[in-house]
Amino acid sequence: MKANRMEAFSDGVLAIIITIMVLEFKVPEGHDWHALIDLGPKVLSYLFSFVYVGIYWSNHHHLLHMIRTMNGRLMWLNLILLFWLSLIPFTTGWMGDSDFAPAPMALYGIILLLSAISYRGLQLAILNQYPDDSAIFKSMGKDWKVRISPFLYLIAILTAYVSPWVSGFFYVLVALIWVVPEKRIEHFLRGK
Amino acid sequence: MKANRMEAFSDGVLAIIITIMVLEFKVPEGHDWHALIDLGPKVLSYLFSFVYVGIYWSNHHHLLHMIRTMNGRLMWLNLILLFWLSLIPFTTGWMGDSDFAPAPMALYGIILLLSAISYRGLQLAILNQYPDDSAIFKSMGKDWKVRISPFLYLIAILTAYVSPWVSGFFYVLVALIWVVPEKRIEHFLRGK
Amino acid sequence: MKANRMEAFSDGVLAIIITIMVLEFKVPEGHDWHALIDLGPKVLSYLFSFVYVGIYWSNHHHLLHMIRTMNGRLMWLNLILLFWLSLIPFTTGWMGDSDFAPAPMALYGIILLLSAISYRGLQLAILNQYPDDSAIFKSMGKDWKVRISPFLYLIAILTAYVSPWVSGFFYVLVALIWVVPEKRIEHFLRGK
Amino acid sequence: MKANRMEAFSDGVLAIIITIMVLEFKVPEGHDWHALIDLGPKVLSYLFSFVYVGIYWSNHHHLLHMIRTMNGRLMWLNLILLFWLSLIPFTTGWMGDSDFAPAPMALYGIILLLSAISYRGLQLAILNQYPDDSAIFKSMGKDWKVRISPFLYLIAILTAYVSPWVSGFFYVLVALIWVVPEKRIEHFLRGK
Repeated sequence: MKANRMEAFSDGVLAIIITIMVLEFKVPEGHDWHALIDLGPKVLSYLFSFVYVGIYWSNHHHLLHMIRTMNGRLMWLNLILLFWLSLIPFTTGWMGDSDFAPAPMALYGIILLLSAISYRGLQLAILNQYPDDSAIFKSMGKDWKVRISPFLYLIAILTAYVSPWVSGFFYVLVALIWVVPEKRIEHFLRGK
Repeated sequence: MKANRMEAFSDGVLAIIITIMVLEFKVPEGHDWHALIDLGPKVLSYLFSFVYVGIYWSNHHHLLHMIRTMNGRLMWLNLILLFWLSLIPFTTGWMGDSDFAPAPMALYGIILLLSAISYRGLQLAILNQYPDDSAIFKSMGKDWKVRISPFLYLIAILTAYVSPWVSGFFYVLVALIWVVPEKRIEHFLRGK
Repeated sequence: MKANRMEAFSDGVLAIIITIMVLEFKVPEGHDWHALIDLGPKVLSYLFSFVYVGIYWSNHHHLLHMIRTMNGRLMWLNLILLFWLSLIPFTTGWMGDSDFAPAPMALYGIILLLSAISYRGLQLAILNQYPDDSAIFKSMGKDWKVRISPFLYLIAILTAYVSPWVSGFFYVLVALIWVVPEKRIEHFLRGK
Repeated sequence: MKANRMEAFSDGVLAIIITIMVLEFKVPEGHDWHALIDLGPKVLSYLFSFVYVGIYWSNHHHLLHMIRTMNGRLMWLNLILLFWLSLIPFTTGWMGDSDFAPAPMALYGIILLLSAISYRGLQLAILNQYPDDSAIFKSMGKDWKVRISPFLYLIAILTAYVSPWVSGFFYVLVALIWVVPEKRIEHFLRGK
C-alpha cells in the first residue's frame, strides 16, 4: 500500500516537472511570427526534456511495481531521484536561452547523469529484495540501457565543449535507445 | 492497471495545464476597475482554452477507458498529445496579450490542430485493438466530430489573417460542436 | 466510476489553485524584517483564500459523493465552478497588492459570488437525481449556508466602497459560517 | 474513505510545494559557469527544503493511516499544517537569495516551528481516537522526535543572529534526526 502512495506522489511531481517547463515560454513582446524566432531553441530544449521526463515516468512506473516491501531507504532513494529530475526545468531553460552554449549543455548532461545514477541506485535497492538466482534479478541486473546511459551522458557532457551538434547527437542517441523498442534496436544493429 | 496510471498522469498534466494559465493574469499596477481593462482579451482567451482543455479532459477519459491492452506505443501517442496540449497556455497568453492579432490566433489554431491530429492518432491506435466489425470500431471510426475538427481549425487558421471575428467564430464553432450534446445538434440541423 | 475521475481532476485543480497563490509572494529585495512589511496584506489575503478554497474542497467532496449517475451536464457545471475558483489566485493577489482597495475587494466578492452560484447550480443538478420527497432532497434543498452566502457576498461587494473593514467583516462572517460546525452556531445564536 | 481523499489532496499540495520551489531558479543572464555562482545558496536552500518537505510527506502519510474516524476538526488541522508548509517555498527563496542572512534564516525556522506545532496538533487529535492505554497511544504520545524538534527550531531561530553556521547546524540536526533511522541514532548515542 505504501508503494502505491510513493507512486502517486512521484506521478504528481513528474507531472508538475513536465508541465512547469512551459512557464519558460514567456509571451513575446511582438505580435507577429518574427517574435517567435527566439523561441526555437527553447521549444527544442523543451521537446527534449519532455521526452526524457516521459521516459523516466514510464520506467519509474515499471520499477516501482517490482517493490516487494517498502521501507525508508527506498523512499529516500526515490526522493533523491526526484530531486535531480526536478532540476531539469531549470537546466532546460538555461540550455534553450543560451542557444545551446557549452556550459548549459554540459550542465544538462550532468543533471541527467545524476538522475541516471540515482535511478540505478533505486533499481539495485529494489533488486536486492529478490534472490540472486531469480529471473528478474538476472534480467534487470544486466539492464544494458541503464548501464550504458551514464557513459553516453559523460561523452555528451565532454563534447559540449567541442560542438553542440556532437553533444546533442549523444543526447538524442540516449533518448532513442530508451524510446525505440528493444527488438527494433537489435534488428537495426544486426544490419537490418 | 497500466492504463490507470497513464490516466492518472494525464489527469495531473491536464489539471496543471488548465490551472497555470491563470498565472498569465499578472496583478495590475492600478487599484481601480480601469486597471482591469487590458485583462479583457486575456480572460476571454483563458475562458476559451479552459473550455478546450475541459473538452479534451472529458473525451480523453472516455478514450482511455476503451484500451484493451496497454503498450509502449499508446504511451508515446498519449505523451505526444499531452505535449501539444501543454503548449496551449503559451499560445493562449500570446493571443490574449496581442488582442487577437493574426499570428497568435493562427498559432492557437495550429496547436489545436496538432492536438486534434495526435488525438486521432491515439484513437486509431486504440481502435486497432478491436475487430473491424465490432460496434465500437464502426461507431468511433466514423466519429464525425474528430474528423471535422481539423478542417474547421484549418479554416480558423487561414481566416485569422482576414478578421479575428471570422477566425474566432470557427474556434467557437468547434467548441460548440463538442460541448453541445449530439442530439441537440441533429435537432438544430434538421431545422428545429 | 466517472464521478471518481471528476473528483480526482477537481482535487488536482483545487490543490494547484490553493498552492500557486504562494507564487504571489515574491522574494523581497531587502534581507531584514522591514522587507516583509509589504507582505502583511498579501499574507492576510492568502490566508483568507486558503480558507475559502479549503471550504470548497471539503464541501465539493461531500457533494460529489451524492452523484447517482454522471452525465455531461454535471461535468460542465463542475468545470464552470472550477473556472470561477481558478480566478481566486488572481483576485487574491490584487487585493493583497492594493492593500484592500475598494475595487479589488469588490472583485474578490464577485468571484466568490459567481463560485457560490455555480456551486448551487451543481448542487441543484445533483439533487434532481433524487425524488422530491427523499430526506436528502429536503435537507439539501433548504441548505441555508448555500442560500445565505450569496447575499452576504453581495453586501461585502457593496460595502467595499464604504470601508475595507466592513467588507472584510462580511467575508470573515461567511467563512466562519462554513468553518464553524452547525451545532455551535445554533448554540451561539440561542444566547449560549 | 474520507481520509483517503484528504491524503490525496495533501499529496497533491505537497507535490506542488516541493516542485514549485525550482521556479525560484531563474535562468541566469550569462551562459558560462560563472553565471551559476549566485545559485549556490539557492540550491543549498532548495536541497534543505526538499528534504524537509520529503520528511513531512513521509510522516504525514503514516499519520493519516492511523485515523479511525474522519471529521471536520481533523480536516482543518490538516489544512492548517498545509498552510504553514505552503510558505516554505517563499522562505526558502528568501533564505537562498539573501545568502543566509539572519532574518530569512530565522523566518525559515519560524515557519518550520509553526509546521511542527501544527503537525503535533494533528497527531494529538488523531491519538485522541485511541484509548489511553493502547500501545499506539503510548508510543506516539512520547514521540521524542516530534517533541524535541520545536526546541531545536527555537535554538536555530535565535542563533540565526549569531552565525548562519550555528543556525544551519541545528536545521541539519533536525533533518538528520528525522532522516536517519531511529536504531542508528541510539547506536550512535551509546558510543557506537
